[in-house]
Amino acid sequence: MSSYSPIGPVVGIVGAGQLARMSQPPAIALGVELRVLANTPEESAARVIVDTRIGDYRDLGDLRDFAKGCDAITFDHEHVPTEHIQALAANGYVVHPGADALVHAQDKAIMRERLTAIGVPCPAWSRLSSVDDATRFGDEHGWPMVLKAVRGGYDGRGVWVCRSAVDVTEAFDTGVELMAEAFVPFERELAVLVARSPHGQGVSYPVVETVQQDGICVEVLAPAPGLDPEAAAEAQRIALQIAHELGVTGLLAVEMFETAAGFVVNELAMRPHNSGHWTIEGSTTSQFEQHLRAVLDLPLGSPATTAPVVVMANLLGGDDPDLFKRYEHVLAHDPGIKLHFYGKEVRPGRKIGHVTALGTDLETVRARARHAAVYLTTGEYA
Amino acid sequence: MSSYSPIGPVVGIVGAGQLARMSQPPAIALGVELRVLANTPEESAARVIVDTRIGDYRDLGDLRDFAKGCDAITFDHEHVPTEHIQALAANGYVVHPGADALVHAQDKAIMRERLTAIGVPCPAWSRLSSVDDATRFGDEHGWPMVLKAVRGGYDGRGVWVCRSAVDVTEAFDTGVELMAEAFVPFERELAVLVARSPHGQGVSYPVVETVQQDGICVEVLAPAPGLDPEAAAEAQRIALQIAHELGVTGLLAVEMFETAAGFVVNELAMRPHNSGHWTIEGSTTSQFEQHLRAVLDLPLGSPATTAPVVVMANLLGGDDPDLFKRYEHVLAHDPGIKLHFYGKEVRPGRKIGHVTALGTDLETVRARARHAAVYLTTGEYA
Repeated sequence: MSSYSPIGPVVGIVGAGQLARMSQPPAIALGVELRVLANTPEESAARVIVDTRIGDYRDLGDLRDFAKGCDAITFDHEHVPTEHIQALAANGYVVHPGADALVHAQDKAIMRERLTAIGVPCPAWSRLSSVDDATRFGDEHGWPMVLKAVRGGYDGRGVWVCRSAVDVTEAFDTGVELMAEAFVPFERELAVLVARSPHGQGVSYPVVETVQQDGICVEVLAPAPGLDPEAAAEAQRIALQIAHELGVTGLLAVEMFETAAGFVVNELAMRPHNSGHWTIEGSTTSQFEQHLRAVLDLPLGSPATTAPVVVMANLLGGDDPDLFKRYEHVLAHDPGIKLHFYGKEVRPGRKIGHVTALGTDLETVRARARHAAVYLTTGEYA
Repeated sequence: MSSYSPIGPVVGIVGAGQLARMSQPPAIALGVELRVLANTPEESAARVIVDTRIGDYRDLGDLRDFAKGCDAITFDHEHVPTEHIQALAANGYVVHPGADALVHAQDKAIMRERLTAIGVPCPAWSRLSSVDDATRFGDEHGWPMVLKAVRGGYDGRGVWVCRSAVDVTEAFDTGVELMAEAFVPFERELAVLVARSPHGQGVSYPVVETVQQDGICVEVLAPAPGLDPEAAAEAQRIALQIAHELGVTGLLAVEMFETAAGFVVNELAMRPHNSGHWTIEGSTTSQFEQHLRAVLDLPLGSPATTAPVVVMANLLGGDDPDLFKRYEHVLAHDPGIKLHFYGKEVRPGRKIGHVTALGTDLETVRARARHAAVYLTTGEYA
């Protein structure tokens, strides 16, 4: 900027979901101006960010228009075509994460190839070209086996746990490109969130436990209860290694299975992640602030926790769409509970918000978060 | 709302300064839609709130247009004419604080009359109609004496410490209506922030010490160091009493002098206040969230602190307007420092942001906050 402006750097976020929305509070504090590319002005982030542009993230022309004047460009989701991200970089725009890193969060087969090559523990896996390939994989590695959409899956969509060749055929009938993974008999699911800046500075948040129902995360316990400190350090080391080897800039969430034989990496995401929402109140630096710092190549913030125990519970849409009429009870019941609403229309099973409780005793804190989440979404007293 | 909306209640804030700006993060979390009445689209809050209306807060027509569709209306500053607030209420709009309460933050003579009537400790004071009145007051209560503009003063403006009749004449030459107060030989300045909802629920934040330079607050120490717990409780009791007796809805900041003989109330503000910026990170419920809850008559949040010591230092504009080039050093130097920029053009002495440090040892935390504030505004290494 040649002349002084009271406004700091401009960060463009492609996509206007709740992750972009929750990036606005730290942007306001840091004086960073956010711009979002939204499908409609009614989207979650578009409601709270003044510089909202309407356009199609699959259209390179729209992306180029959007990118003009941004000091850095980043993403609310992983659906922007890899070649468009390459084209933006070729045009001189600063994009974090870059296409070469992000492809590992877009394409699960490329991710498995790369993680296997750098020695990160993965389940047995294979690319597939036919139902026969898949059943052979099941016969070799055992049933049930897991089929995954190579691209485009999220929140349990695009994953099929197959118990037989019949299940395999059903998955293939969807017509999407599939790959096979051995079913991992895990004890629990963990996640490690790390940040890496273009300078190469890295930080790791504490390892958390993610509690899933029907493939959707419903609860996050931070830090992961009872995890051995050396095992926790090993999980953090794996995540930082992946960030380094893949050249990730911004946040990297590494979802892992904890098994009797150690950690197995399940999925990667390169953006703020549901498993890190607890950091808004639970860490000195929220994941949203950390991502902004990283994509602007600013020094990263402290990932220290602000309480011994933090529990985040997702609000999943129920039958009754009006959350607000249940506001009062929850706020009166627990003056310390923190609510986060995403401004999204309620549909059954959709993530429409989350709640966070902080404290010292896991069972107490977990009960507080669960009570608020269940009451807000169903009106039932849990 | 007859049909369901994913957006919660609408709160209209008259004025678009940094207080409205810092209300947006908790509004985003709570799903509350903010609307601001701004003078220009470049103002601090207008940059970060989508529903910005341009208008004149002194014009009743503009205020009525602004109020349409708001579930509650509140204020970024105290300059809206009292009679306009009465008119809005007469039109059925929900306004917090109401005119009958707010007038005590608008008119210092009315405030002194009321506080005296309810037995709150005040300095000796008097309305004035002439220079002779003022000099008589000085002769009776001692010199120096203090003259204050009855309406419109803030941040040290509208206050004259007079050592002689010559000083008195100078103050009267400004033409504003003045009142007299005895000079209070105080040990330090404290502030108590309380919230009161229309239901009558009240909460008090811990008493803080405010450090002033040239009548401008430069630093806030939370909680006030070394304050006797019984004295702290007495200060909180005074603030809650004022909120109750005056019928305040929303936040009330009570600025007090600590003297050898006890507390003396100096000023009142009925909105989020500079002495409460530390609550953004330093309390379970920030003052901005608390104010939104109070004006919506929602249950109030916990005012518990998140760290033993919190220090806030204001960023006052210096000669060099570009804060952002000094970002990197401050963030690298202290990964735990929290920056808040207001998106305002830098002018010497203007409040353009603040920094907050949290920890356990007062001198360490204070040094961190001071280092960041001094470096950001001057480039000097303090």
